[in-house]
Amino acid sequence: MADVIDSEVFLAFSTYATIVILKMMSMSFLTAYFRITRKAFANTEDTFTAKTPEEKKKMLRVNDDVERVRRCHQNDLENIIPFVVIGLLYTLTGPELSTALLHFRLFVGSRFVHTLSYVMALPQPSRALSWIVGIGVTGSMAYHVLTIVLRL
Amino acid sequence: MADVIDSEVFLAFSTYATIVILKMMSMSFLTAYFRITRKAFANTEDTFTAKTPEEKKKMLRVNDDVERVRRCHQNDLENIIPFVVIGLLYTLTGPELSTALLHFRLFVGSRFVHTLSYVMALPQPSRALSWIVGIGVTGSMAYHVLTIVLRL
Amino acid sequence: MADVIDSEVFLAFSTYATIVILKMMSMSFLTAYFRITRKAFANTEDTFTAKTPEEKKKMLRVNDDVERVRRCHQNDLENIIPFVVIGLLYTLTGPELSTALLHFRLFVGSRFVHTLSYVMALPQPSRALSWIVGIGVTGSMAYHVLTIVLRL
Repeated sequence: MADVIDSEVFLAFSTYATIVILKMMSMSFLTAYFRITRKAFANTEDTFTAKTPEEKKKMLRVNDDVERVRRCHQNDLENIIPFVVIGLLYTLTGPELSTALLHFRLFVGSRFVHTLSYVMALPQPSRALSWIVGIGVTGSMAYHVLTIVLRL
Repeated sequence: MADVIDSEVFLAFSTYATIVILKMMSMSFLTAYFRITRKAFANTEDTFTAKTPEEKKKMLRVNDDVERVRRCHQNDLENIIPFVVIGLLYTLTGPELSTALLHFRLFVGSRFVHTLSYVMALPQPSRALSWIVGIGVTGSMAYHVLTIVLRL
Repeated sequence: MADVIDSEVFLAFSTYATIVILKMMSMSFLTAYFRITRKAFANTEDTFTAKTPEEKKKMLRVNDDVERVRRCHQNDLENIIPFVVIGLLYTLTGPELSTALLHFRLFVGSRFVHTLSYVMALPQPSRALSWIVGIGVTGSMAYHVLTIVLRL
């Protein structure tokens, strides 16, 4: 275990994986923030601040800002989790530290750009490019893993 | 490998991670149960029990109970997967068994309370509190990981 | 680390986990393909090909083909990620190579059948069966893990 933990690549992977997962989790707070400020909820029990049944009903609605953050969060789930899984397997193949760092930094950077592009609705192709860079990094690591470990 | 597998913290992590993932998977069955009993489906090929085209069309609808379970399942994905990833890295840093157990038990307990609060629509803040406890545990482990492994 | 990486079961797990995660990621491209060909987008900044504001508005719509792929992708998230997590823990318990290969192949095969059934809207129970086979495999590995590592 000491070997795994002491490898510089594993320490770097742990750092970047933790940071990007924390970024993903922060979307929950952003959703909660928009739900409360926009008064747009999905569950009746969340509308307890309403004084009248009409107000209660009005608060159960879909809001564009909330939906935008939720789509961004969903995109994180679809891209960050594959990065973490493939990145762990990639790390265990013992790649060069510099190559690994390039992959990790590029991915984490691209996801921060992606979130900014999404939440601030920046003009395309900012979001599309940051998304494709992230997929490219994960794809490159997956290719590296398969060339080394392939056992069907 | 024997070292990793034999560590008490790793065994505890494996146990709690497996239990909470199984809990998450059980939401699929609850969704299927509500879809069948409420006759509310999302795909035309799922309405094969319908006798007439009108009945078929009527079964393609959104149902509140189904959507509630699906939101609960989505919240599981957004919270339990980060716990598993960060929890694994946390376990590999070799924490004290008692501290680790406190984290794992608190998280898994909070997610069971969260599911009950969500599916039974218990009054707030039961769901909000159980959600924040889970995030707190994962955040605490993430902080611990970053203080030990940080390599940017 | 060399021990972990050199075990045949771990190499097989890495191979199948990478393949099934790549399959999951391919759903993103299928969604993008359907969004572009069906001209059905979720974000205003994605409708930049529209020439008039009316056309722009018309392109912000829900399309059945897009939604079908998104449901399939969601089902992948709900099933493939538990497989990867439980599969990793299962691999670390040191199972027989033949038994492990049976689990991995059955799961990955069932998910490819599931995707085909879903995207091509094949008549039930093709999708239901492939879904339940995948859950059965993950459940069997979870049972194996719990019988070996259980530490509550």
